[in-house]
Formats: sequence, C-alpha cells, structure tokens
Amino acid sequence: MTGNPAATFIQARAIEQANARLQADLEQDYQRLGELLTRNGIEIDSVTNAVAAFEVAIPSWGVGTGGTRFARFPQPGEPRSVFEKLEDCSVIQRLTGATPRVSLHFPWDQTGDIAGLKACADELKLGFDAVNSNTFQDRPGQTQSYKFGSLTHTDPAVREQAIAHNIECIKIGAQLGSKALTLWIGDGANFPGQQNLARAYERYLESAAKIYAALPSDWRLLIEHKMYEPAFYATVIQDWGSSLMAAQTLGPKAFCLVDLGHHAPNVNIEMIVSRLVHARRLGGFHFNDSKYGDDDLDAGSIDPYRLFLIFNELVDAQWRKTPDLALAHMLDQSHNVTDPVESLMSSAIELQRAYAQSLLVDRRTLDEYQQDNDALMASHTLKRAFTTDVQPILAMARMRRGAAIDPIGTYRSSGYRAACAARRPANLSFGGGIV
Amino acid sequence: MTGNPAATFIQARAIEQANARLQADLEQDYQRLGELLTRNGIEIDSVTNAVAAFEVAIPSWGVGTGGTRFARFPQPGEPRSVFEKLEDCSVIQRLTGATPRVSLHFPWDQTGDIAGLKACADELKLGFDAVNSNTFQDRPGQTQSYKFGSLTHTDPAVREQAIAHNIECIKIGAQLGSKALTLWIGDGANFPGQQNLARAYERYLESAAKIYAALPSDWRLLIEHKMYEPAFYATVIQDWGSSLMAAQTLGPKAFCLVDLGHHAPNVNIEMIVSRLVHARRLGGFHFNDSKYGDDDLDAGSIDPYRLFLIFNELVDAQWRKTPDLALAHMLDQSHNVTDPVESLMSSAIELQRAYAQSLLVDRRTLDEYQQDNDALMASHTLKRAFTTDVQPILAMARMRRGAAIDPIGTYRSSGYRAACAARRPANLSFGGGIV
Amino acid sequence: MTGNPAATFIQARAIEQANARLQADLEQDYQRLGELLTRNGIEIDSVTNAVAAFEVAIPSWGVGTGGTRFARFPQPGEPRSVFEKLEDCSVIQRLTGATPRVSLHFPWDQTGDIAGLKACADELKLGFDAVNSNTFQDRPGQTQSYKFGSLTHTDPAVREQAIAHNIECIKIGAQLGSKALTLWIGDGANFPGQQNLARAYERYLESAAKIYAALPSDWRLLIEHKMYEPAFYATVIQDWGSSLMAAQTLGPKAFCLVDLGHHAPNVNIEMIVSRLVHARRLGGFHFNDSKYGDDDLDAGSIDPYRLFLIFNELVDAQWRKTPDLALAHMLDQSHNVTDPVESLMSSAIELQRAYAQSLLVDRRTLDEYQQDNDALMASHTLKRAFTTDVQPILAMARMRRGAAIDPIGTYRSSGYRAACAARRPANLSFGGGIV
Amino acid sequence: MTGNPAATFIQARAIEQANARLQADLEQDYQRLGELLTRNGIEIDSVTNAVAAFEVAIPSWGVGTGGTRFARFPQPGEPRSVFEKLEDCSVIQRLTGATPRVSLHFPWDQTGDIAGLKACADELKLGFDAVNSNTFQDRPGQTQSYKFGSLTHTDPAVREQAIAHNIECIKIGAQLGSKALTLWIGDGANFPGQQNLARAYERYLESAAKIYAALPSDWRLLIEHKMYEPAFYATVIQDWGSSLMAAQTLGPKAFCLVDLGHHAPNVNIEMIVSRLVHARRLGGFHFNDSKYGDDDLDAGSIDPYRLFLIFNELVDAQWRKTPDLALAHMLDQSHNVTDPVESLMSSAIELQRAYAQSLLVDRRTLDEYQQDNDALMASHTLKRAFTTDVQPILAMARMRRGAAIDPIGTYRSSGYRAACAARRPANLSFGGGIV
Repeated sequence: MTGNPAATFIQARAIEQANARLQADLEQDYQRLGELLTRNGIEIDSVTNAVAAFEVAIPSWGVGTGGTRFARFPQPGEPRSVFEKLEDCSVIQRLTGATPRVSLHFPWDQTGDIAGLKACADELKLGFDAVNSNTFQDRPGQTQSYKFGSLTHTDPAVREQAIAHNIECIKIGAQLGSKALTLWIGDGANFPGQQNLARAYERYLESAAKIYAALPSDWRLLIEHKMYEPAFYATVIQDWGSSLMAAQTLGPKAFCLVDLGHHAPNVNIEMIVSRLVHARRLGGFHFNDSKYGDDDLDAGSIDPYRLFLIFNELVDAQWRKTPDLALAHMLDQSHNVTDPVESLMSSAIELQRAYAQSLLVDRRTLDEYQQDNDALMASHTLKRAFTTDVQPILAMARMRRGAAIDPIGTYRSSGYRAACAARRPANLSFGGGIV
Repeated sequence: MTGNPAATFIQARAIEQANARLQADLEQDYQRLGELLTRNGIEIDSVTNAVAAFEVAIPSWGVGTGGTRFARFPQPGEPRSVFEKLEDCSVIQRLTGATPRVSLHFPWDQTGDIAGLKACADELKLGFDAVNSNTFQDRPGQTQSYKFGSLTHTDPAVREQAIAHNIECIKIGAQLGSKALTLWIGDGANFPGQQNLARAYERYLESAAKIYAALPSDWRLLIEHKMYEPAFYATVIQDWGSSLMAAQTLGPKAFCLVDLGHHAPNVNIEMIVSRLVHARRLGGFHFNDSKYGDDDLDAGSIDPYRLFLIFNELVDAQWRKTPDLALAHMLDQSHNVTDPVESLMSSAIELQRAYAQSLLVDRRTLDEYQQDNDALMASHTLKRAFTTDVQPILAMARMRRGAAIDPIGTYRSSGYRAACAARRPANLSFGGGIV
Repeated sequence: MTGNPAATFIQARAIEQANARLQADLEQDYQRLGELLTRNGIEIDSVTNAVAAFEVAIPSWGVGTGGTRFARFPQPGEPRSVFEKLEDCSVIQRLTGATPRVSLHFPWDQTGDIAGLKACADELKLGFDAVNSNTFQDRPGQTQSYKFGSLTHTDPAVREQAIAHNIECIKIGAQLGSKALTLWIGDGANFPGQQNLARAYERYLESAAKIYAALPSDWRLLIEHKMYEPAFYATVIQDWGSSLMAAQTLGPKAFCLVDLGHHAPNVNIEMIVSRLVHARRLGGFHFNDSKYGDDDLDAGSIDPYRLFLIFNELVDAQWRKTPDLALAHMLDQSHNVTDPVESLMSSAIELQRAYAQSLLVDRRTLDEYQQDNDALMASHTLKRAFTTDVQPILAMARMRRGAAIDPIGTYRSSGYRAACAARRPANLSFGGGIV
Repeated sequence: MTGNPAATFIQARAIEQANARLQADLEQDYQRLGELLTRNGIEIDSVTNAVAAFEVAIPSWGVGTGGTRFARFPQPGEPRSVFEKLEDCSVIQRLTGATPRVSLHFPWDQTGDIAGLKACADELKLGFDAVNSNTFQDRPGQTQSYKFGSLTHTDPAVREQAIAHNIECIKIGAQLGSKALTLWIGDGANFPGQQNLARAYERYLESAAKIYAALPSDWRLLIEHKMYEPAFYATVIQDWGSSLMAAQTLGPKAFCLVDLGHHAPNVNIEMIVSRLVHARRLGGFHFNDSKYGDDDLDAGSIDPYRLFLIFNELVDAQWRKTPDLALAHMLDQSHNVTDPVESLMSSAIELQRAYAQSLLVDRRTLDEYQQDNDALMASHTLKRAFTTDVQPILAMARMRRGAAIDPIGTYRSSGYRAACAARRPANLSFGGGIV
C-alpha cells in the first residue's frame, strides 16, 4: 500500500493541526453545553462517550459516484478496485472515527487476492461488516440470467446458481472476518399475473433455507425487504411482514434489516423498528434518507426528525433492557451530486447526531407523561432533546478519538480528491444511462 | 314485523314482474356469452353457480348515511334502530340474493331484546355474521373514557372496561348465531412521544388474550389493522405485520382481517392477501374502495382491477388447494352521497363481478406462462378474464336465486325509500360535523 | 366581560412572576448563543426582533376540541360561544405575544351582536384576521342543502345561497376590521362520473367571481385548495394549479392560500410556495403538520425540517427583495388529544422557531455554494441553521414583549382550564361520531 | 432497406393469412356486440371507425429493452441504430395499424444521414411525431456537463449548450416533418439548499424562451413535467402548475404534456387533464402505467380504469365541443421483462380499448344524472361502458385497416425476433447497472 493517498494525505498529524485551530472554540462550546445539560440532570461526558462508541459500516460501493437509470455523472478520482475503495473508506474512518468497518458487495468487489484484501484492510485499520450478495445483475460469462429472478426463479438451475453465489459470499466473508450475510434480491414481477405470488414466496423460503444452512454458527442472515424497484408491480420480499415471516421460518440466526428508503409513502418506520424489536428479529439498518422513493440520499438530509425517532426507539429499547439487541448499522446511499467521501462522513455524523439527541431524552419524565396521557408534554420532551444543539458533543467525540473536529474542511484542505484524480484514471464504463 | 316496508315493497312477486321484462334479453346475452366461453373451454353454468353461491355480509351501520368529520348529510328514511336496519338489509338480500347475513356493531346496535332481534332476523331470513365491538367512542354514562385508548390504554381500568365490552359482544353474538368477533381499535398516538410504541403493543396483546380466552370453541377472532385515522401519528395495529404477530401470539383461532382501505399509498394489497394465505391466518375482508385514504367508497368504484386481483388471489389459493381457507366477506363502506341500500347492492354485485372474472382465468395456461416467464402473455391472461363482460352471468345468478335482474331499477320503482321516509322521521343528531 | 377567566387568571403580573424565576438562566443562555452567532457574523438581537414581530392568527374554532369522523372526546371548559373563544385566544396572545388576531368562521361564530364582539375583542386587545365562510355543512333552517356542493352545485339556487353567505361574511368581516375572505369549499365528487369535472370548475369560477365582486377595495380573496376530504374522488379546487388558475381568472385581489396538510403524499410544499411567490399569488398559510393526510396536527410536530424549509423560502423571497409579499399566517389545527390552548401556543412558537432558524441561514454563503453547485455545503448551510438551538431567542422575544418565557408552564399553573371547566358546562353535542 | 426483417417477415399477406383463421369468430362476435349496443342506441361502426382513426406515436427508444439503475437485461435482436428502430416500429404499425409515427430522441437517434432516415421512414410508411431533446445525460466529447442541470444550470455556458441542442433538434425535426418539440429536463436538486428554487425556475423560463423563439410557425412546444427522478428533492418542472405557468409565460405555441407516471401518489390525473383542457394548454400525453413511481409499465396494465377515465375526459371535451383540441399521443414505456415490440403493440391496443369504452358512454344520460346529483347512476353509467367487452371492435378496426386481428400471435409466428437476433449482434454496452 506504499503511497496510497489515504496514508499520504490524511495523516494523524494533519488532523491534529486542523483540530488545533478549532479546539478552543469547541472546548468553550462543549463546556457551555455541559452546563446546560447539567441543569437537566445530564452528564455530558456520558453522552459523548456513547457517541464516540457508535459505529456504522461503510458500503464499499458507496465511495463511487452513484446514478439513476437516466444517467451517471462520474467525478474525478473514483476508485477502480476494492483496494482503492478501502483507501477511501479509511479516509472516512480517519476523519470521523465512526466507521471502522466496510461492507463488501460481490461480485462488485471480487478479487483473486482475498488474503491481500485482508492485509490491506488490516494496514488501514479497517474491519469487515456484513457481506452483500448480488443476484440482481448478470455478469459476463454467467451461465444463468437473473432477468426473471434469482432465488425465486421458476427454473431450479437459476435458483441453484443464486444459492451458490450466496454461499460463496459467506465463504469469502468468513475469510475476512465478517459475521453476517445481507440478503437483498430484486426478484418480483412487473405485471399482474407475471408471477404466482404465493409460489414465488415459497421458492424464496426454500432457497434461503439452503443459504441459511451454510451460515457459520456465529453468523447472522440479514433479510432486507423493499417495496418496489427493480420490480414494479410485486416484489417477493416487499415489506417487514414478509421479511419477518421468512426470518421466523428460517431460524434463530435470521433477522430483518430495515433500509429507511424501502417503505410505502407515509409509513411510520419507527413503528416497524419497534415491532421487530418486539419480535426479537431486528438485525440492523441500511441508513439513508428519501423524499419520494428509494432515493438513497444522505442520512438525515430530508427528514432529520424521522431519523431521530428511529434512534429514539433504539435507545428506548436499551432503556427498557431489551435483551440481545445486536444491530448492524450500515450506510446505504447513492451519491450522485456530491463527493461520496464527503457524503459518507456527513451521514455518519448525522447518525451520531440523532443518537446523541436520543440520549438526551429524559426517559423517566417521558414515561410519566406517557402514563398520564399528557400528549403535549410527552411530545415536547422528545422535541426538546431534538432541538438541543449537540454539535459540540459530536465534535468532542471525534476529537477525543483522534478524528477531525471538522471532517469536511479537513478533507477538503488535504488535497485527497485531487491526488486520487491524478492516480485513478476516469472510469466511464457506467456513464451511459438506462432508460 | 307486520307492515315493515321491506315485506310490503320488495315482494318476490314484484321482483318476478320486473325480471319478466328483462328476461328475454338476459337469456340471449347469457347464451351468447356461454358460447364465447365454450370457445375457451369454460362451462358458463359452473361460473354462474359459483357466483350464485357467493355471499357477503352487510354491516348494520352501512344502511345509514355516512359522513366525514366535516359534515353528514342525512337522507330521508334512515333506519332509527337495529330492527329498521335489518329491514333495509333484507331488501338488499331480496334484490341481490348475495347478502344473507348482517354484521352487527355494539353498542350502536344495542337492544334490550336480543331474542326479538333474532326473531326479526329469522322472519326476514337473515343471519348474523361477525360481531363488531366499539371501543373508539365514548357513550353517555360510560365509566372510563377511550380518549387515550382502550385495549392499550395506560390505565388498567380502561383496558378492563374495553375487554369486558368485547366479551359482552361475544355473548350477544353467541345468542344470535355469530361465529366471529372483529376487533378493530382506534388506539394509537397523534404525536411522537405520546405513546411508548413497544409498551402499547404489549398491552394490546395482554388485553386481546383476555378476549381470546372468552371465545367459544367454534369462534374466530378477526384482527383488523389500519394505517391511520383516528390516530394520526402511530396506530397500535397499523399493518398486517403487527396483525399477524398478534394472531400468532394469541392462538389458532385468531386471524387477520384485511380492509381494503387501511393501507399505505401504493401498497400491493393482493400480496398481503397472498402472504396471509401462506401464513394460514387470512380471516376475511372488509370490502370497499378508495383513492386517497380510508375513503370507504363503494367496492370496485375506483380501481376495479385491484378488486379483481384480490379475488384472483383467492381463486388461485383454492386452485392450489390451500387447506382451511374460510373467509368472512363483509362490506364496510360509508355512503355519503348515495342511497346506502343502492350502494350496498351495487357493491355486492361488484364483488361478484370480480369473483366471476377471476373464475374465468385459465389457470393452467397462466401457470405455463408463469413457468416460462412469459410476462406479457401471463399478464394478458388475467386481463382477458377481466375484460370479459360477465354481466349476464351476474344477472343470471341473481335471477336463478329469485333475486332481481336489475336490483337498482327494481328498488327504485318499488317506492321503498319513500315509504321509509314516511315511516321513519328524520334522525338529525349526527348532522353537525366535527372539525 | 367582567370576570372573564382570561382577565382573572393570566394577568401581566402572573406572567412577570413566572418569568422572574426563569430569567437568569435565559439571560445567560441568550448571551452565550449571542456569542456563538457573533462568531458567524450574526447579531442576535436582529433575529430576536424579527421573531418578536412575527404574528400568526388563531382560528376561532381551534380553541375547541377537534375530532375525527369516528369520535370527538371533549375536554372540560370548552368555549360555548365566540365570546368565550376570544377569551381563550387572548390567553394564547398574552402568554406568547405572537397571536394578536383571531380568524372567525361563519356561521360557527354567528352572533347577533357584532358590535359587542368588536368591543370584546378590543377589550382583550385582539384584532380580526381573515374571515372564513362555511358552505360544507348544512345548518338547521337552511333552504338549500350543500350535500352535493355549494359554489359548484348544479342547481343555481344552491350556488346563489352559497354566494350570498360569502358576501354576508365579507360584510361581517368589514365591520370587525378583517381584510380578507378565505374561501375553502368541500365541493367535489366521490365517484368517477358523479360530476362533470370541467363544468364544476366553470361553475366555481362563475360563483367566485360574484363573491370577488363584493370585496371591498382593500380586501383580498384567499383561495384554499385541498386534495381530498370531504370529497373522496375529485375535489374542485384540488391543487395549487387549480387555485392559481382561479386567482388569475378572478383578478388582482385573488391569492392562493397554502394549507400544509392539503397536498398529495411526498409533495414538496416549499416548491409550491416558491412557485406562488413567482406568480405573485401567494396569499398566506394555514399552518399545521401531518403524517398521512389532512391530519391537522400541531405545527412542527411531525416534520420540523419541512416547516423550516417553508420559512426558508419566505425569508429567501424577502432576501431576493420580492415585492408586495404580504402573507396571512394562520394556524389551522384540530386538537383531539391535547388542551387546544396549549397546542396553539406551542404551534405559534414552532413557527417562530422555524422563522428564527431561517433567519440564521447565511444567505450570501449559501448563494455562493449554489452558484458553485456545491450541493453538500449548500445543504449543510441550511442544516446548520436548523440545528442551532434558538430556544433562547424565542424565549427572549416573548419576555421582551411581556409574554411568558415558559408559556405552557405558566398556563398550567394559572388554573385557567379548571376555572373554565367550572364556568362553562360541557358541550356534548358533537360527541357522537360519524362513521 | 433491402432485406430488412420487417419487410420480409410481416408482409400483408402473412397478416391476411393469420386473420383468415380468426375472421369468422370475429364477425360473429362483432355482430353480436353490435346488437347489444344497438339496444343502447349505439351504432357499432361509428365506434369502430373512430377507433380505427386513433393514432399514437411510438418512441424510438421504446423498441430497445429498458432497465433500472440496478440492471438492464437485454434481449436478442435489439436494434442498434435508428434505422433498425424504424424497422421495429414498422412491424408494430403493420400489425396494429395504430402507430403510423415515430418520436425520435436526440442524440440517441443521431445519424449523419437525415435524408436517408426520411427515405427509410417513407419506405416503411412511417412519419415522425414530436422530437425529444436530451439534456439529462452527458455524451463523450461534450464541452459542458449536465451533472448539475441543463436549461437551469447556474453557469450560462451550460444553459447555452442545452439551448443549442434543443434548437438543433428542432432543425432535424423540421427536415423530418415533425411539428413539435417535447421538452423534458431532469434539472433539479437532491438536497434542500442545493438549488435556489425560485432562481432555477427563472433560468428555466429564460432558456425555454430562447428555444421557443426558434420554433417554426406551425410547431408546438410540449412541456413535460415530472415530480421526481432523476432529481430526488426538487425538480424544476415538478407538476402541472409549474408546467402551465411556463406555457403561459412562453406563448401560444407552448403546451403541457402529461406523462401518466409523473405525478405524486394518489393524484387524480383526469382532473389535471380537465384543468389543462380548460386552460387551453393540453398538448398531449406520454402514456404508460405505474403502481409506485415512474414505473413506465405497459399502458393499462396496472389500472385500466384510470386510463379509461383519462380518455373519458378527452371524449367529454370533444362532446362539449372544446375548440382547438389537438393532442400528441405517444407511448413512453420501459420494457424490462417483455419483448418491446409486443409491449408497444399491446399498449397501443389498450389505448384504443379505453377510447372505445369512452365512446360507449351515454353522455346525454350521464349529463342528466350529473345534473340530478344521482351519483350512483352517474358512476354506473361510466362503469357500464367500461365493463363492456369491446374486444370485437378493436379487432375489427384492425382488420379493416389491414392489420392483424391477433397482433401478438401473428408477430410470434412470424419469426421476426429470431431473424433480428440473427442479424443484429447483441448490444451489451448498457448491461452494467448504476447503483
């Protein structure tokens, strides 16, 4: 990894220097916020420590520029291999301190050199989170096509190919230290009648059971549902109900993963979170934000209160001492108009913001208001936590971990993107658009 | 029941006379449709017989004029008691032959004379379907208020009152020959924080278990979910996932009821039907149609193809020989601008239409197209059944049961509404509107 | 007005005493926030002064408990007349200093004594905002029914009655000092075919022109659109496009009013605001919040960022020196589970919060980011203003106007509600529910 | 064009032979339907003639396989050039007789040989409909990028490039006999703050005015709005209101084009049609169907009643003698899982079906029901037209024009696709997917 831009450009020393200019203001702001919180009986450092311990995985594909079916507009310096993706991920981790693991996606991240990949990650101090399989695209040389489905295809040969690919993903993940497989399929139908809805689900359960059987004992299967896209009439795992039934059928290692953009309009996502906690089947999240569909925008950019309310459920579940709540947090965004590194840093921080705000909720008081059906004051109690400016907590948590007080500013002055642009010739292969 | 308008105005003889004028055309149309279907290998009488055997319950409250929170505009001759509601229901049954049972709602249908009610129904040749409890309104003299919930209220006294009311409903239903209790509650929250989402659900399960325990051995509990309204932020039983989990928790007599208007925008309802069939927990339907929310419009009036696709799932489930599929079909509509008797007749017929169309689907051919992923022809196969004009089948099914070929026309010429208007002084108590 | 509870219970002296206990903390918080803002080049008092000058009208009907078609659960001490409504409104104004005007609704607020009403308002230091007509309900003794429409009814006699009512509202409003008539109708259809869509709109324009002709020269007509409810298939003025065309047709005194809850799911409301500003036809707002439909929840309670983005458009329009931007701000909420006085105070403050946050946006910097298409930093610029805790600004603005630092707390300790409960016997007439 | 598969495989003679086998049944069905309609006072041939005169344009891009951002699964024999696209279009026209014109899209259809293109079309008896510009994608060698907008970009150089491209499209279209330019842009923002909403719209008007100025005197500008995608927070021309204001600003040759998939959830599209007819600004349609977003599914495949209601508005507008109603009908679909030729044929026929059904509406009777507010019978009047099986009319209209009674069957037995597969090597360049 000699001379990788991450190592050269975002050194601890550079972060320290950038922080030095901001530290005095931060210390003052932090102290003042601490005094404000003390007035409400909250010890600020306990919140800061919790925030500092928060971690979210970066999806390897997230560091490339995304696009829509209409177009993709690449930016300079995009990573061309999984190794270069890890470099970008390490920059995010160095600057935010919140993203120590990477979530791979196969075959996109295929490499003949798994040992080299592990070594590269070790050198960059990165670990590996859940592995993602891909049976929603065909790749050159593939025997069977996924045009009409993968795990639920009517042809057993296609199903077998998709199952085998998932098992291969588990094997690679096991070599890398992953502990979970995330299963998202695009299978479904574009027209009424195209698919027998009942039989497609039965085929899903049958195929998923074979994948489940291949899980190492300490692994989890994370089932991700989605309302629509790429299927436009019926998606086999379309909502949390179908996801939960599948998890129940498969066994105790199967859990449901909630992607914030995969629901019907107006759906109350925090209720789904609460129900899956009740069912003991909440496995984790794909964080992003959206206004219309699966927009895959930066977390917290459209409806930050919704993000807060989701974290509020998680903190409430901890407060109610829900056992065995182990969640895989991951960002899953498509960065069409921003530098992906910047968006991912920003999004990780938004999750921390929502988490910090949730930790400020006075739960004992809230509980009393709820018991008394004092809807107004209960609502205000949440809202007051949300309107508290937790910026100093987030910055202090970063600084104490050796990360940047101002990650975006530090990144921009580092020259990292320009260096990548020089070292990584443009990848234009995805630029055409699919209409 | 001497002199009840139904008995006087919609006599078998009047129906026969009205039919007589239409029968020749019908016979010709029926014969010609029969020839067309024969060309496709379908025996028309088998479809007609199935349609003639189709039954849907009338909700007792449906025969009164509905309204919105803005206003209610009553029409002349509204029923003032459960006895008068039965009269109206019997008119619907005489004219359509498809609605032999009534679904009561307590305390709306409260009467001191259950035996008299049963006798009245017997005289009118009506039976009783699922009983509906009501814990979303307060009535004068009630000890506890449901303002902040019923089965999920934070105060155990309120929960007990709501449980007791449900058990009372079961007792009344048992006297009347009902075999199911439909459980819909409006419980929820209008604001984030108002309610602890997890605990409210736990309280629901605890309360519902007590009701479940009071079910006679041959009864079923039908759990109805709804996305929103009257609660505007979070509803305790908000979707089929929460409904299913509750049914699983309660036991084998608990089933999920699907109201067509209780879902998020764009949701694929036929998939929910399919999933609940898979789970062996589909209990029945509240039929209506909607464009925006829980509009409670006449079945099939807004999106008739959606209605067809739901019936298509049911016929497909039968075709796949799904065991133990016993469904409670009920209309649940609010008639704000039409004569309720007319809307209910029309809606019952729309269900029969969708059912008849579903029976025309060539399932063997459809299955082959599905196996071959011939999306276009599979889609056309459903669509061709839907575009077939089954009017003659519906009319013939009615005629053969002694009902009206043209129920609306026959009703209008009967003078029934005018007679009711004369006999039933206006009920204006609900006219004010709630904004 | 001798002995009205407002005068007795919420005296300036009581507010001062309550404030005295909170003032020291507020002064410190305010000073610290001032220092923080100075760091960003913002002078805190300029923001506080703007916030203190912000005004929003209270709808007279808002001080009563609302409900849904399923039920209304009244609370003790509800106002029984427009005079008592004014008392409640004056409490809100005394405690928040942000709500000096009341928006009346006829015939709900009908009184034989307009002069007495004006005198009562003067004594309470309240003015009158836009007048609202009501042609979506029938009242006893009315000649024509609005069941099938009012301004767009097929029968000219109904249209004339509705026109006359609106002109009567203008006359009453003129006596009271109002300067605008808000025109919202529920006219529409529940079923395809019920109404000729084109002709209904033509009738609307014809009727509205007659009302427009009766406007005094310094009055405005505010046209309010709504997607659905009470009409469930087609509403005559269903969106801002139909509203704008009507305003263009009627003349320069006609403007469009935006109710935040009257749009399709996912619609970007701030864009509509921007377009109506462009068209020079934005007339004002009905503020509230919603998750599903026209939920009429407290402003800012569900999606506070959306509220901020709407205010951001208004501040941006001022910054771009848009001429003639005169807006009628009004709350329009239904308080089903809270004390209406508390919800209205809270909502007025939420508007001030969004306004204050919008004033913190560094528009010169934002403009540069926009010019450079720096999407991330542009987005962060808005977000940073939103995440700033402006609580001290809001409280200081209130205190400087003689209002309460803590309006809810001061209200609760005043005993006002209990006094009302004692003086105003319960009004149960609306309790029944309309299903 | 020697040896083009269309000429070889779908000859008039082949169609005649295929028709010969189906004609007897058709004649009988047609006669019987005619008798049924006569009973209702409708002369079947007048409907058939109107249907036979109906025309809809084929989009050149529609004959290739579509895809989503996740993947594209090409099928064998895809056209590789605009000439091959014309071949496919001619097949659709020969078999359906309803699609005599093609709508081109530049630069996708760029060719150095415009005269040759015209000659090819003439030989295939195809004309050219509206020309479509493309400023939502970058192409190799382009000076300016559209990543951050085109006609509304903050940089005037980008705007000028986009304007020049549109003017070039007009020039090409003029050579080919087109009479309209369809203007759809993807411009907008993904994040609040990214774009100044007001200024972006002003730039749109300024740029569009320059394009408008270049229109030949007998041309029209068709402005197409879209709620979202590719922009995910704010789209500059987001709804019909913005589209209408733009058309009003630009001048009398500017009209609004309605794409059925470009609206918010639940929106009543037929009302928008009605309003644009009222404004005299309805210019045409992009037909397709959708359940969730801009799904671009086959017309009538998801909600055929909605399609009928749109045609009902158009027929009603004719019936009301709306002057100057000249509409550009075009299909705009993405065929991901079907043979595009089959989907386009099927969709053209679905439009004819909706049109035929609309022509069956007894408008005089409907008008009376509407006048009387007989909502039920008015609704039934539309519904009865919709449930009439017009299949024989559609087939007869085709046969009389020399097209196929069974277009799909005739196409499949022609061997056309296999011949294309042999002659047109696979185009895999778009297969990768953009996530």
